Amino acid sequence: MFSWRLTHRNLIRPSLTRHFSSPSFMDSVQKSFAALQLNPTSVSHSSTTSPDAWRDALATAQDVPASFELVKTLVYKPKTAKTAVPVPVVVVARESASVNSAAIGKKLNLKDLRLASEDLLKDFFSLDKDSLSPLALNESTFPKVITVVDASIATSSAPLALHALSSSSTIFLSSSDLFKYLRTLETDDVTLRELDLQNLDPATPASASTSKAPAKDAKIEGAVQIAIGVKKEVLLKADMLDYYNVSGCYILKPWSFSIWEEIQKWFDAEIKELGVQNSYFPMFISSKVLEREKDHIEGFSPEVAWVTKAGNSDLEEPIAIRPTSETVMYPYYAKWIKSHRDLPLKLNQWNSVVRWEFKNPQPFLRTREFLWQEGHTAHLTKEEADIEVRQILDLYRRVYEELLAVPVIPGIKSDKEKFAGGLYTTTVEGFIPTTGRGIQGGTSHSLGQNFSRPEMFNIVVEDPTDPTNQRKTYVWQNSWGLSTRTIGVMVMVHGDNQGLVLPPRVASIQVVIVPCGITVNTDAETRTKIENACDELAKMLKKAGLRAKADLRDDKTPGYKFNDWEQKGVPLRLEIGPNDLAKQQTLGVRRDNGVKNPIPLQNISSAVSQLLDTIQGDMFKRAQETYNSRLKEVTKWEDVVPNLDAKNVVVLPWCEVEACEDDIKERSAKASEPTDERAPSAGAKSLAIPFDQSRWTPIEPGKTKCPACGRDAKRWTMFGRSY
Amino acid sequence: MFSWRLTHRNLIRPSLTRHFSSPSFMDSVQKSFAALQLNPTSVSHSSTTSPDAWRDALATAQDVPASFELVKTLVYKPKTAKTAVPVPVVVVARESASVNSAAIGKKLNLKDLRLASEDLLKDFFSLDKDSLSPLALNESTFPKVITVVDASIATSSAPLALHALSSSSTIFLSSSDLFKYLRTLETDDVTLRELDLQNLDPATPASASTSKAPAKDAKIEGAVQIAIGVKKEVLLKADMLDYYNVSGCYILKPWSFSIWEEIQKWFDAEIKELGVQNSYFPMFISSKVLEREKDHIEGFSPEVAWVTKAGNSDLEEPIAIRPTSETVMYPYYAKWIKSHRDLPLKLNQWNSVVRWEFKNPQPFLRTREFLWQEGHTAHLTKEEADIEVRQILDLYRRVYEELLAVPVIPGIKSDKEKFAGGLYTTTVEGFIPTTGRGIQGGTSHSLGQNFSRPEMFNIVVEDPTDPTNQRKTYVWQNSWGLSTRTIGVMVMVHGDNQGLVLPPRVASIQVVIVPCGITVNTDAETRTKIENACDELAKMLKKAGLRAKADLRDDKTPGYKFNDWEQKGVPLRLEIGPNDLAKQQTLGVRRDNGVKNPIPLQNISSAVSQLLDTIQGDMFKRAQETYNSRLKEVTKWEDVVPNLDAKNVVVLPWCEVEACEDDIKERSAKASEPTDERAPSAGAKSLAIPFDQSRWTPIEPGKTKCPACGRDAKRWTMFGRSY
Repeated sequence: MFSWRLTHRNLIRPSLTRHFSSPSFMDSVQKSFAALQLNPTSVSHSSTTSPDAWRDALATAQDVPASFELVKTLVYKPKTAKTAVPVPVVVVARESASVNSAAIGKKLNLKDLRLASEDLLKDFFSLDKDSLSPLALNESTFPKVITVVDASIATSSAPLALHALSSSSTIFLSSSDLFKYLRTLETDDVTLRELDLQNLDPATPASASTSKAPAKDAKIEGAVQIAIGVKKEVLLKADMLDYYNVSGCYILKPWSFSIWEEIQKWFDAEIKELGVQNSYFPMFISSKVLEREKDHIEGFSPEVAWVTKAGNSDLEEPIAIRPTSETVMYPYYAKWIKSHRDLPLKLNQWNSVVRWEFKNPQPFLRTREFLWQEGHTAHLTKEEADIEVRQILDLYRRVYEELLAVPVIPGIKSDKEKFAGGLYTTTVEGFIPTTGRGIQGGTSHSLGQNFSRPEMFNIVVEDPTDPTNQRKTYVWQNSWGLSTRTIGVMVMVHGDNQGLVLPPRVASIQVVIVPCGITVNTDAETRTKIENACDELAKMLKKAGLRAKADLRDDKTPGYKFNDWEQKGVPLRLEIGPNDLAKQQTLGVRRDNGVKNPIPLQNISSAVSQLLDTIQGDMFKRAQETYNSRLKEVTKWEDVVPNLDAKNVVVLPWCEVEACEDDIKERSAKASEPTDERAPSAGAKSLAIPFDQSRWTPIEPGKTKCPACGRDAKRWTMFGRSY
Repeated sequence: MFSWRLTHRNLIRPSLTRHFSSPSFMDSVQKSFAALQLNPTSVSHSSTTSPDAWRDALATAQDVPASFELVKTLVYKPKTAKTAVPVPVVVVARESASVNSAAIGKKLNLKDLRLASEDLLKDFFSLDKDSLSPLALNESTFPKVITVVDASIATSSAPLALHALSSSSTIFLSSSDLFKYLRTLETDDVTLRELDLQNLDPATPASASTSKAPAKDAKIEGAVQIAIGVKKEVLLKADMLDYYNVSGCYILKPWSFSIWEEIQKWFDAEIKELGVQNSYFPMFISSKVLEREKDHIEGFSPEVAWVTKAGNSDLEEPIAIRPTSETVMYPYYAKWIKSHRDLPLKLNQWNSVVRWEFKNPQPFLRTREFLWQEGHTAHLTKEEADIEVRQILDLYRRVYEELLAVPVIPGIKSDKEKFAGGLYTTTVEGFIPTTGRGIQGGTSHSLGQNFSRPEMFNIVVEDPTDPTNQRKTYVWQNSWGLSTRTIGVMVMVHGDNQGLVLPPRVASIQVVIVPCGITVNTDAETRTKIENACDELAKMLKKAGLRAKADLRDDKTPGYKFNDWEQKGVPLRLEIGPNDLAKQQTLGVRRDNGVKNPIPLQNISSAVSQLLDTIQGDMFKRAQETYNSRLKEVTKWEDVVPNLDAKNVVVLPWCEVEACEDDIKERSAKASEPTDERAPSAGAKSLAIPFDQSRWTPIEPGKTKCPACGRDAKRWTMFGRSY
C-alpha cells in the first residue's frame, strides 16, 4: 500500500510503477489524482479473469480495506450506419447491479446496444475486459464515448475496488472520489450520464422507427455531443487549442495563435494604410454608462459579465466587462471631436471581449471570451463613411479568400439581421460544406448618425459647408470587427478525415522535411548524411523566406511523423531517403490532395515556393467550386426545404419584407420535421443580399415574385441554415 | 427659456448660442449636461457687476423660477514659492454665506489665501469676476485648482442661479445637479472638497511653521494632488491618454499606443529568435484553481476582481480575472509536458491583466488594468532556465536603453522583494531624476521548481540522464513580464517643462515639417510653393523609412504648431520658409536640447537619419550621466538619509539580512521626519543588487561592514525611495 500524495523521494522509488501495466496510466490518471489531491490505496495481486477470482485475489492480498465493493465496467456498441464511427457506451456500476442494456439504450435513444468485442476494447482502450475499469476513461478516451454511471454508486459508503488498468492490480477509491475523477474529464460537450440503473423503464425497446439520418446527425443528446466532439478531436490532435476549466473558454495554442498573428499582421498593415490608428480602451464599463444605451445594449445585456467584487470588498456599483466597445469609446469621441478638422477619427483595437453565452459553446465559433479587432470611425459625411464600410469589408473578404483560402460572398444584411442600433450591416458570408450551413465571417457596420445623436452620445461638429457657421452636423460612424472565428471557419472548410489542412499563407510551418528510409541496417554515416541533408534543406528554405522545419526526432518513425504533421495540416511534406539523396531530389507530398512528386534539390526554394502558391490557389479554387455548386437559385417555395435538406444555401428573389423573413424561417423549420424528426430543426435565416446580383437571372421589377409570399421581389437573397 | 435636452432641429437654431459668451462653454459644459441628462433653464439679461444688480436683472427677465438662490464663486491664491505654479482655490458658496479665507486655508493647510487678481482669473478661466461661476470649472481647469464647495449648498431646495460664463446670462440648476456636474470633473487625484463653511474652526491661522519644501512637494492633500496633476496635464496635452470613467483605468490613445507597438514589434521578434511562441490563455480563473495556490496568490488576492454575475444570473461560483497567469497556465503545462522531449516549453502572451488596486492609481505606473507580455517557460535543467532568465532580462534592458533611451541597472532583487513563490527575481531598475526615486522597469523571475512540485502543479518528466529510466525530475520554470509602465518611465525620465520628449526610435512621428514665414503679404504662389516643398520633403523622408509628417493645417499659426509638436515630444522639427527655399535648405530644431541648425535639402534623408540617431544617443547619454551622478556609494549610515533627501539612490555594501532591510526602511523613513514634516515619508527599499559590482570599491570579505547593522557586507546594493 502506498500514498498517492507523494513526496519527490517517494516518486522515484522504482517499485512504484510495478502495479500498473500501462505507462499512460501513470501519466494521465496519476496526474489527475494528484491535481485532485486524491490519495487512494492500491494493491497488487495475481491476475484475475472473473469477479470471484478478483474477490479471492483481494482476500489474500495485503493492505486491503476491511470492506469494499467491486466495480464492473461494461462497454456496449450501439447499432450505427456502417460508415459511421462507433460511439461506445461505457457503463460503470456495482458488480452486484443488474444492467439492462435495452433500457439504457432507450434512455439514451440508441438502438441495439451490444456488448463490445475485445477488438473494440483494444481499439478504444488498449485493454482487455479483465483490466478494464473506469480509470480507462481519460482525457483522450472520454470524449469518444458515452459514459453512464449507475447513480446508486454514490450511495456506497465502502471503498470501491477498481482495476488499475491491469487485472492484477486494484485501486481503492471512495465513490465521491470516483465521481470527482470522472467529472474532471467532462467537457462542454461531453458530460457524464448518471442513470438510476435499477429504476430505468424497461417496458419498450429503443425507438423502433427507422431513421435515414446517420446517428451523428441525430438530435439525441449523446449523439450530438459526440458529433461535435469528433470535430474537436481534430482541434486537439492538431494542437490548435485545449479546453479550459472555465466552461466556454479555450486556450489558443501556438499552432492556432500563429494563424491569428498572420491575420493580424496583414490586416493591421492594410488598415494603417487607410489611416486607422491603434489604441487601447479599458475592458470595463460602468453600469451607468452601459445602461444609458438601452437600445443598443438590449441585445448584449443577457450576456454581460459583471464584476461586483474586488478582493474582499463589494464594489459600490457593478462594473461590466465589454461585450463590444461602442459605449466604452463614444463618450470620448464626443469629447475629442470638437471640430470638423478632428475628422475623420479612425481608431482600432486588438483586444478580447466577453459574451457570457450559456448555450453550446464551440471552439472559435462561440466562446465566452474571444479575440478580435474592433474598428470605430467617425466621418463628416455619409459618403465618406459609406466608402469606408466597403473598403473594410473588402479587407475582410481578402483575409478569407487570400489568406485562409476560404471563399466568401460579400453582401448586406437584412434589417432583421443588422447590428442593433446601426444603420446597415455588410457581411462576408462563408459556407461549411459538411453541414451545408452558412456562416457569418465578419461584419462592417454603418452606424449612421444613430450613436452621434444628442440623446445618445452627442458627437457633433459645426458644418464646414455652412457659410453662416451656425449649422451643426452629427458625425457619421462605422464600426467593424473580425474575430478568431476566422480560424474556426478555415478549419471547417478545409479539414478532412486526416485532420487539419492549412493554407500555406497562414501555416506557421509551411514545409516539413522528414528523413526516411533509415532502418536498423542503415549505417551511421548514411543516417547522418540524410539528417544533415534534411537540416540543410530546412535552412535553405528558411533563408528563402519559407517557414520550414526538419523533423529530426529520433524517437519517432517516419510513419508517426507523417501522421502527426498531416493531423496538424502542414501544407507540404518533403521526404528525403538514401535514394532521394543519390538522385539529388526529394519527394514532395501535398497535404491538400495527397499528390506526390519528386522535386530536384537544385533550385528547390523557388520550386517549393511556387508549389505552395499552387496549393494555396487550388485550395481556394476547390472551396469556391463547392460553395458555388451548393448555392441554388430557387424561385419556387417547394424547392426551398429540399435544397436546405440537401445541404445547400438557397438564393431567392426576395421581397425584403421582415414578416416574410420570419415566415421563411418558421416554414423551413417546420417543413423539415415530417421528413426526419432528428434532422437539425433550425429554420433558414437570411444570410446576405449579395452585392453582386449579376450571377442570377435578372429580377424583373413587378414581375418576379418572392417565392415565399408572392410579393414583388427586390433582390436575390441568400437564405440558409447557419451557425 | 429653452430645454437643454435638445432635439436635432433645436440644436441647429442659430439663436441658441447667444446666451453664451464662450464657445468652450457650448463644447464642454453642454456636452456634460447632455451626458448627465440635465435639463436646466437659462435666461439672458443685462450685464451685471454686483449681486444686487444681478438680482435686479433677474427680476425683470422672463422665465425665471419663482424662487432661487444666487451662487458666488470666489478664487483665492495661496502663498507659494515664486518659482512654483500657483494653485488657485475656487470656493463655491451661496451668495449669502460668509467666507473665512483663513479658516479655509487652515483646513487645506495652505498659507495666506488671498483673493485672486483679475489677471489670474483671465489666465485660468479666460473670464472676468462677474462672469465667473462653477461652470468655469471644466475638464481642463478643474485639475489645476482646488475646488471647495460649501456643504450647505446641498441643503438648498430652491434652484441655484449661476452665471453661464457671462455676466449677462444665468442658468438655473438644482443643487444636486450642480454637485452632479462637478463630480463628473473629479479624477482619481483631484476631487471636490466639501467644507461646511459656517462651522470651520477660525481660531488659528494656517500653520505658521516655515517650510523649506516647495508646496508641490508638500504632503498636504490638495497640493500633492496638484503635483501629480501637473504631470498628468503633460500626458493629456501630449495626447497620450485620457481619463476613463472607471477609476484607475485609462485610455491609451494612438500617441502612446504606438510606442507600445514599437516595443512589441522589437521584443516579439527577439523572443521568437529564442524559440518562444505566442499563445492566448483565457482571462478567467475559476475560484477553485485560484484558491488552490494559496501561497503564490496571497500577494494578489486583495487586488483580484471577481465576476459573480452574467446577465441577470448569479454564477454558481465567482470567477476571477487574472492578475497574472501562473495559475491559469500551469495546470496545462502539467498536462502538455509528458516527456523531456516536450521541453523546453516557451510560451508568451500579449494581454491585459487586472489588479484592482485601491490606492493612488497613476497613469502607466499603477493602473487597474494594464497591458503587458507575460512569458512562461519550462526547462529540463536549472542551468538552461538560469541562462534564459538573464537573456530575457537583457532584452528588457535593451528595450529601455536602446528603444526608450532610458538607462537601467540590471540586478537581482533581495529575498524580501522577489516574486512571491519564485526562487529569485532579476530586475532592471530605472531612476526618475525629478523625484530622486528608483523605479522597477521589468522583472525576469526564476521560479525554480516551486510551481512544478507535486503539491503545486506537478509538472514532471522522466530524467533522461538516468540510465534506469526511473528517476523523475520536476521542471525548472521561469516567468517574465514587461508592461506599459515602460512608457510612463520614459515620459518621466525625458519630459521637460514643455511636455514630452520622445526618443526617435519609438516616436510615431520622428520628424514634423512646418511651413513658416507665410504672412498676409505672401502671394499665393509662394505659399503653395512652400507647402508643396513641405509635403514633398515629408514624402521623401517617408520613402527613406523615416516617420515624417508635414503639418499643413491652415487654421493654425507656426507658433501654435511648434508648441503643439513640442508638447507631444516629436524629436525633430524642420521649418521651411521662403528664405530656406531660396537657399535650398531647412531649419532643423531638436526637441531634446532646442539646438537649431540649417540642413541642406540635398541628401537630407541621410542627414536627418543621422541626426535622429544622434538625438537618440544624446538622450540616452544625458539620462545615463544623470543616473550615474545620483547613484551614491555610501558606507556610513549618517550619509544615507541626507543622500536620499538630496534625491539620490544610495549604494550600500550590504549584509543581505532581511531584518536589516526592514530596519533601513524604517530608519530612513523616520530619519527624514525631523528635517521636514512634509517631505515624502517613505523609507528606502532595496532596489537591486547590481550584477556589475565592479563600479564600486571592492568589498573585502570580513572587513567591509554593512553601514546599517555592522554585519559583514556581501554585495553593493542599491537602496532608494521608489514608486
